[in-house]
Amino acid sequence: MNEGCLLVLSGPSGCGKGTVVKRLLERDPKLRLSVSMTTRVPREGEVDGVSYHFVTKEQFDRTVEQGGAMEYARCGNGDCYGTPAAPVKEWREEGMDVILEIDIQGYRQVKEKAPDAVGIFIMPPSFGELSRRLHERGTESEEKIRQRLKTGKEEIRCAGEYQYIVVNDALEDAVDQIEAILKAEHAKTEAMRTIIEEVLNDAQTISQ
Amino acid sequence: MNEGCLLVLSGPSGCGKGTVVKRLLERDPKLRLSVSMTTRVPREGEVDGVSYHFVTKEQFDRTVEQGGAMEYARCGNGDCYGTPAAPVKEWREEGMDVILEIDIQGYRQVKEKAPDAVGIFIMPPSFGELSRRLHERGTESEEKIRQRLKTGKEEIRCAGEYQYIVVNDALEDAVDQIEAILKAEHAKTEAMRTIIEEVLNDAQTISQ
Repeated sequence: MNEGCLLVLSGPSGCGKGTVVKRLLERDPKLRLSVSMTTRVPREGEVDGVSYHFVTKEQFDRTVEQGGAMEYARCGNGDCYGTPAAPVKEWREEGMDVILEIDIQGYRQVKEKAPDAVGIFIMPPSFGELSRRLHERGTESEEKIRQRLKTGKEEIRCAGEYQYIVVNDALEDAVDQIEAILKAEHAKTEAMRTIIEEVLNDAQTISQ
Repeated sequence: MNEGCLLVLSGPSGCGKGTVVKRLLERDPKLRLSVSMTTRVPREGEVDGVSYHFVTKEQFDRTVEQGGAMEYARCGNGDCYGTPAAPVKEWREEGMDVILEIDIQGYRQVKEKAPDAVGIFIMPPSFGELSRRLHERGTESEEKIRQRLKTGKEEIRCAGEYQYIVVNDALEDAVDQIEAILKAEHAKTEAMRTIIEEVLNDAQTISQ
């Protein structure tokens, strides 16, 4: 059986990453979402193992020291976030495709450890639309939104580091495109080495 | 508008390339099939400009000398075959995807001239099935079929030179997979440079 793909999805706040991931998981039963670990305290409604793996500072540091994180970050406020390596490895070995929803710093670390990771940048149809979506949420101050847009601009400047860019204009179209990318990645020659060997072995038997 | 993709389809005789291409063209209105030129005489039922562009030896040589062939071959019996470059270029500039159905020697030449060409190798599900399909046609001598299978084995040995391998077990599945590859190629970052610039320009306007 072939190993599953590792997809990394990034994109600016407001691009609709979360909704895209949710829809992908609904549509594709062979896709698994990596759950990050964090040292911050759970917010109301967050479930351990679903929203995040909530860990102590000691557990986090030990995992990182033992090479058990695919990527991690320590925030200015002291909170730490990271992607546990073990479930990603296990799922891929079982032939499942795995999705990480992380930022560009995380993506760069993942690419170091797993060069075969496939980076997809979710792009808003326009910057005006990104701004509109952030305002529409109606939960944040103008100052906070301005900060998010500034960060978003920086992130879009780095979009060229990803292999694919998917514009999230209509949700189902964006999800279709990511499914096509997954399907194409499965047909990549590197993923199909065994079939070449199998057919050639078969040819050997038949020629004899 | 983005330039169309150049797909090269190869595969051993009996793998079902022709049927796959026919079905692809039926399903995808933005796909164009390159018509080869040849110096051989038309066979019964062949239509000039559809089956082949039938050209004289002089026309063929002039086209090749002027760099007007993406790839070409001179057969042992003196017949020449080649892919005219002009229609491929024009279609791609119009945003159409173009498909070439050629052999591995042709593919290697195309890759030299157009490194962005996407090579897809159509693989039979097994060598036994390839043999079965060739026998099923019932039009060729056992000796001729044996020759085709021998060449087929050589071709499968080179499948690793292609970017993608699509197993043609069930026709519609193979066509689905090639359509997914095309869709993914359109989302490749190199094809999406303009959208990054557009969104960043938009950001500039909004920030001011």
